[in-house]
Amino acid sequence: MTKVGVILSGCGYLDGAEIHEATSVLIALSQQGVSYRCLAPRKPLDVVDHVTGQATGETRDVFAESARIARGAIDDLAGVNGADYDAFILPGGFGAAKNLCNFATKGPDCEVDPQVDRVLRGAHAAGRPIGFACIAPALGAKVFGDEHPLLTIGHDQGTAVAIEKTGARHKAVDVTDIVVDEDRKFVSTPAYMEDTNPAAVFEGVSKMVVRVLEMAGAEVNA
Amino acid sequence: MTKVGVILSGCGYLDGAEIHEATSVLIALSQQGVSYRCLAPRKPLDVVDHVTGQATGETRDVFAESARIARGAIDDLAGVNGADYDAFILPGGFGAAKNLCNFATKGPDCEVDPQVDRVLRGAHAAGRPIGFACIAPALGAKVFGDEHPLLTIGHDQGTAVAIEKTGARHKAVDVTDIVVDEDRKFVSTPAYMEDTNPAAVFEGVSKMVVRVLEMAGAEVNA
Repeated sequence: MTKVGVILSGCGYLDGAEIHEATSVLIALSQQGVSYRCLAPRKPLDVVDHVTGQATGETRDVFAESARIARGAIDDLAGVNGADYDAFILPGGFGAAKNLCNFATKGPDCEVDPQVDRVLRGAHAAGRPIGFACIAPALGAKVFGDEHPLLTIGHDQGTAVAIEKTGARHKAVDVTDIVVDEDRKFVSTPAYMEDTNPAAVFEGVSKMVVRVLEMAGAEVNA
Repeated sequence: MTKVGVILSGCGYLDGAEIHEATSVLIALSQQGVSYRCLAPRKPLDVVDHVTGQATGETRDVFAESARIARGAIDDLAGVNGADYDAFILPGGFGAAKNLCNFATKGPDCEVDPQVDRVLRGAHAAGRPIGFACIAPALGAKVFGDEHPLLTIGHDQGTAVAIEKTGARHKAVDVTDIVVDEDRKFVSTPAYMEDTNPAAVFEGVSKMVVRVLEMAGAEVNA
């Protein structure tokens, strides 16, 4: 049975994984009848109040917060190898750009979390497809920029320019669409990089999940 | 336009709103093109580590944590009247049974949060339909037990017995099904009261949302 690793970055779009995107990934995987496991690094995150949008000065653990989305069924990314899963998917949220890498503050000069970098490179070297939602393609661009992958983060021009500085190529599409890099086996969708709603995010994420599963050789119901 | 109030109880199934259920509600409402607003009381919750399942001794705010699911678009329940919305929906998670009432510890003798009690009674008196997922029907049973409403929490016999002690009637159904009390305008679905998966939860929750919207007079696409 096809098994997918879902890499989370916390729980809440301002300091962790975007909840609707992450849940949309899990619903879509579950609708296709494939197995999945949530994964996250153990490291601190800087808490942001989701009412005010302001940093609280508090820290929480990326792994423990991600476990809220995973309902406790989660593994430390440090114990994972890229070939362990048939595919990987990364939802967005600021966590992908602050906890899994620091693109949010450093843009194309960002550093990628060593465990995330190791797992994604291992997966790619083993021919595994990788799906990215929202801002997560910026992370993929940084890791694989030398290969000039084709990715989307929607219509945000500033972010698109920053992504292209990594060597990646950017294509603007709408929230319900995906961009497929067949050669490199990357699939991306804009999700909440657009000003949108949960149904549109679910539609785009579902298309991304289906295409990733097809690339992984799974039988899917489109 | 039909406007629905979604009452949240935190963020994470062990100490707040169940994330997949809450997100499924928002996706389903959004798919039907109706307007919604997330609502929550301001009060402390006892944090549970979602990796270990153990209480951490820490407290967080129900409103601030619910805002993670709401992406910041959330109102304090204290400022809401039951007639302000065309319908209300309550996802489950232990938060519904620990933060919105204390059914988790007191069962049928539980107390309901005064704001939740006031809003639900006001909505019901104004003829508004109310949808309940997972353990949230236990809260509905406590508030409206005198009217002997028909509700479901799935197949958990102990919880069903506790619910019937409030005066409510219980009917066991599967996770992808709903129980409809036409006279009282209550719709319930078992969600994660069953040992299930995100796709099945989304299916049951979507049916519940559609039936609630029909009762509220909205045009729906089933």
